[in-house]
Amino acid sequence: MEFTVGQIAQLLNGTVVGDASAIINSVAKIEEGKPGCISFLSNLKYESYLYTTGSSAVLVDSTFTPKKDVSAALIYVANAYAAFTRLLEEYQKAMQQGKQGIEQPAHFGEGSTMGEQGYRGAFSYVGRNCIIGQKVKIYPNVYIGDNVQIGDESIIHTGVRIYDDTQIGNQCTIFANSVIGGDGFGFAPQADGTYRAIPQLGNVIIEDRVSIGSNTTIDCATIGSTVIRSGVKIDNLVQIAHNVEIGKNTVIAAQTGISGSTKIGEQCVIAGQVGVGGHLVIANNTKVGGQAGVTKSFKKEGLSLNGTPAHDLKAHLRNQSLVRQLPEFEKRIQHLEKKQDSSDQD
Amino acid sequence: MEFTVGQIAQLLNGTVVGDASAIINSVAKIEEGKPGCISFLSNLKYESYLYTTGSSAVLVDSTFTPKKDVSAALIYVANAYAAFTRLLEEYQKAMQQGKQGIEQPAHFGEGSTMGEQGYRGAFSYVGRNCIIGQKVKIYPNVYIGDNVQIGDESIIHTGVRIYDDTQIGNQCTIFANSVIGGDGFGFAPQADGTYRAIPQLGNVIIEDRVSIGSNTTIDCATIGSTVIRSGVKIDNLVQIAHNVEIGKNTVIAAQTGISGSTKIGEQCVIAGQVGVGGHLVIANNTKVGGQAGVTKSFKKEGLSLNGTPAHDLKAHLRNQSLVRQLPEFEKRIQHLEKKQDSSDQD
Amino acid sequence: MEFTVGQIAQLLNGTVVGDASAIINSVAKIEEGKPGCISFLSNLKYESYLYTTGSSAVLVDSTFTPKKDVSAALIYVANAYAAFTRLLEEYQKAMQQGKQGIEQPAHFGEGSTMGEQGYRGAFSYVGRNCIIGQKVKIYPNVYIGDNVQIGDESIIHTGVRIYDDTQIGNQCTIFANSVIGGDGFGFAPQADGTYRAIPQLGNVIIEDRVSIGSNTTIDCATIGSTVIRSGVKIDNLVQIAHNVEIGKNTVIAAQTGISGSTKIGEQCVIAGQVGVGGHLVIANNTKVGGQAGVTKSFKKEGLSLNGTPAHDLKAHLRNQSLVRQLPEFEKRIQHLEKKQDSSDQD
Repeated sequence: MEFTVGQIAQLLNGTVVGDASAIINSVAKIEEGKPGCISFLSNLKYESYLYTTGSSAVLVDSTFTPKKDVSAALIYVANAYAAFTRLLEEYQKAMQQGKQGIEQPAHFGEGSTMGEQGYRGAFSYVGRNCIIGQKVKIYPNVYIGDNVQIGDESIIHTGVRIYDDTQIGNQCTIFANSVIGGDGFGFAPQADGTYRAIPQLGNVIIEDRVSIGSNTTIDCATIGSTVIRSGVKIDNLVQIAHNVEIGKNTVIAAQTGISGSTKIGEQCVIAGQVGVGGHLVIANNTKVGGQAGVTKSFKKEGLSLNGTPAHDLKAHLRNQSLVRQLPEFEKRIQHLEKKQDSSDQD
Repeated sequence: MEFTVGQIAQLLNGTVVGDASAIINSVAKIEEGKPGCISFLSNLKYESYLYTTGSSAVLVDSTFTPKKDVSAALIYVANAYAAFTRLLEEYQKAMQQGKQGIEQPAHFGEGSTMGEQGYRGAFSYVGRNCIIGQKVKIYPNVYIGDNVQIGDESIIHTGVRIYDDTQIGNQCTIFANSVIGGDGFGFAPQADGTYRAIPQLGNVIIEDRVSIGSNTTIDCATIGSTVIRSGVKIDNLVQIAHNVEIGKNTVIAAQTGISGSTKIGEQCVIAGQVGVGGHLVIANNTKVGGQAGVTKSFKKEGLSLNGTPAHDLKAHLRNQSLVRQLPEFEKRIQHLEKKQDSSDQD
Repeated sequence: MEFTVGQIAQLLNGTVVGDASAIINSVAKIEEGKPGCISFLSNLKYESYLYTTGSSAVLVDSTFTPKKDVSAALIYVANAYAAFTRLLEEYQKAMQQGKQGIEQPAHFGEGSTMGEQGYRGAFSYVGRNCIIGQKVKIYPNVYIGDNVQIGDESIIHTGVRIYDDTQIGNQCTIFANSVIGGDGFGFAPQADGTYRAIPQLGNVIIEDRVSIGSNTTIDCATIGSTVIRSGVKIDNLVQIAHNVEIGKNTVIAAQTGISGSTKIGEQCVIAGQVGVGGHLVIANNTKVGGQAGVTKSFKKEGLSLNGTPAHDLKAHLRNQSLVRQLPEFEKRIQHLEKKQDSSDQD
């Protein structure tokens, strides 16, 4: 997509100094700019790049005055960083609006309905009795089982698998190849050493404005629902087991795993590669550091946890520091022993 | 699917007290029941819910006598919990039997054969010279390469990828987007710093009644076979490298990784996010705790391991507790030093 | 595919002793050989298997003289191990060359072009304005977005998802169900506790001869590019976040995660389940041990790191050993205290 500098200035309520007819077709960091790119300058630490940038246009604060000649067109706006973010959002929206209609072949099961202005890509599969809202995008090669509900303006990226009975709210995004609603991992040991699968008949409920990364897995509940509350953001390769509940606006980074029936509070921040055990309760506003292993419930709000088994961050750092001092401790003990020996011999 | 309370009682050899014509179309925990649901009461800790539940029917032990009025229909059976599990299994079986026949378009390569009563979903791909047993379900968007064998009653969920020459036994289940038989990670370093891929010409053999979760990867052997023995249960996002062998009835939880050529015994239980190094041997009945890192072989049966590097659970817990006591140790050493100093000055 | 022993000998410049007309259709380790297989003997530790092997042919060094009768045909070559590796490579090449042409239905978007001798499998999807080189193989159920470039002789395995604007070089291999170019995990916290997605408008650049395993995820850059340099080898279930750069010929084992904006040097070897924090710089030739957690930059080349937080391997091993000695330390401190107590009472 291409715009002129002038069109962008108009969109952002800005004023152009320089060539308003220059063509913009991409964005770049100011230090990496090329002709056709637009960049921004907000932190004056980066001002020197303004005079050397290859970008065709740069957004600057309206209070800014350049000290040297600038070859790029300048667009003066109230807040260059905010304007740049707005520009990115508009650009993304414009790009995404391109997809509409149905590409064939696509499978759409009996009894299913889909709202207006949606997209279903080629080789996508929608089962029976699904209710799909307005402006929903279902990319190519997606699989959606039976009795699934998807709210308005949600985006299901290519290769996502959604099992029967899953409910997804409005404005959710699920990235490629994630699996929603596969069986929970439940097996009853038998007398002969084998295991028998416990039927997993529950579902997954995903509320509104949830984002789920690529290749993530969220298992259905044994009975009842695995629940992802509104505003939750989940990264790639995350495992959410059966009957888990993730509270509103909680953020979970890549490769973390939450075991069965655990309940994570609201507004938590869980870093990457964390493991959380089963049947635990984690309070609101808890922070968990990378690779931590949470083995018990933390019901007090606002804690920062780290380590395996996870405990209070400060105690964790103190212990880590002491482990690093062990060679010195050993010397001090040896020294004490030597002295005592010599005093014994007195 | 809908049944009457009376039909369910008949299936479970139970006796109804209450409305045998009430319609049941779902299951629920007794505390979360709604009209149309069936629940069970086994542990009397939950008896109070019986008198308030919204469920239309509740399974109870034949020895049970309610203390108050119950609005739900009661179905008396020998063992309420066992009957409920049986009901779930029958329900699941009934649901799954719905899928049969071939949805078009589906690709089925030259020389391949498939037994009776099977299902192949739309956009599924079966390569050449495959032998697929009876009552096998191949969901939409599945890919199966050439020369693959799949035994009777196995279920290959949507998006699963099965590479050439893989052998899968009877009654196996592979959940969505798992990859069976991708190349092992083997590269020979060259003099110029580059790596050259070592051809991976072996295959994967999966025996009977194996369950594999979603987004799991099992690599083919370099030469020979990566082998998953009968009854093994593997969770989501697990990595099994080339030439690994997993013994009968071993259970592996989510996000665990087993490195190349390692042999895990029978009836082992490996928790989540565990890493096991390459070329190791782990004896039968070994238990490995979450996030442990196994760096050497453990050939004695029945051990419980934890920590990184993994060692005996008891020693691990003792060490963990001592690490937490390090601040106190430091004080004790300081105290000893002070005393010794003062005695030196005597 | 089938060959005679004589044909294989000719390919490898070898001399046959035994039945040159025997049919070979598979490879096996010498101790696991069956009729129809070819094996090799290089390390004389395995010589006894030569006299009992079921293989139809065995490659041996030209300097080798058997001590007993051998039922297999022997192919004498200059270096049996090198010849066997060559044979595997030829075999793999022959197998892969089988795939050519276009299987229908397959989607190929407007403005896209593809070079000669390529393969596009059934249910594969190529978006608009893609430039695909010669001899490229795109397996069934692959999704490729818009404006994607793929160089000559690259292989995109089944179920791979490649987002818009991705650039892939020559002779790359991406295994099943990996996702290239999904959104980076970037969210701006809002005053009301919700998060707003930061548009991710960059792309992924993968240079030449890169290998990427199954179910791996590589996110696009926020602005600019996530870059995987030539010769990099990445295993299964690996997470590469937005704006990361991986240097030439670096090897990354399974389930490792690299956080946003981190730059890994050339010729590094990163083991499995490692976590590397964001905005770090790791120098060339760094080695990182399994499950390590790298929390700061290491700008000196050639270090070996381990532990969480990762530090020098030697110091790590020393600390680990001291932690294991803590029970003994405790005893030594108790002993000192007792002695001091008794001397106090003197």
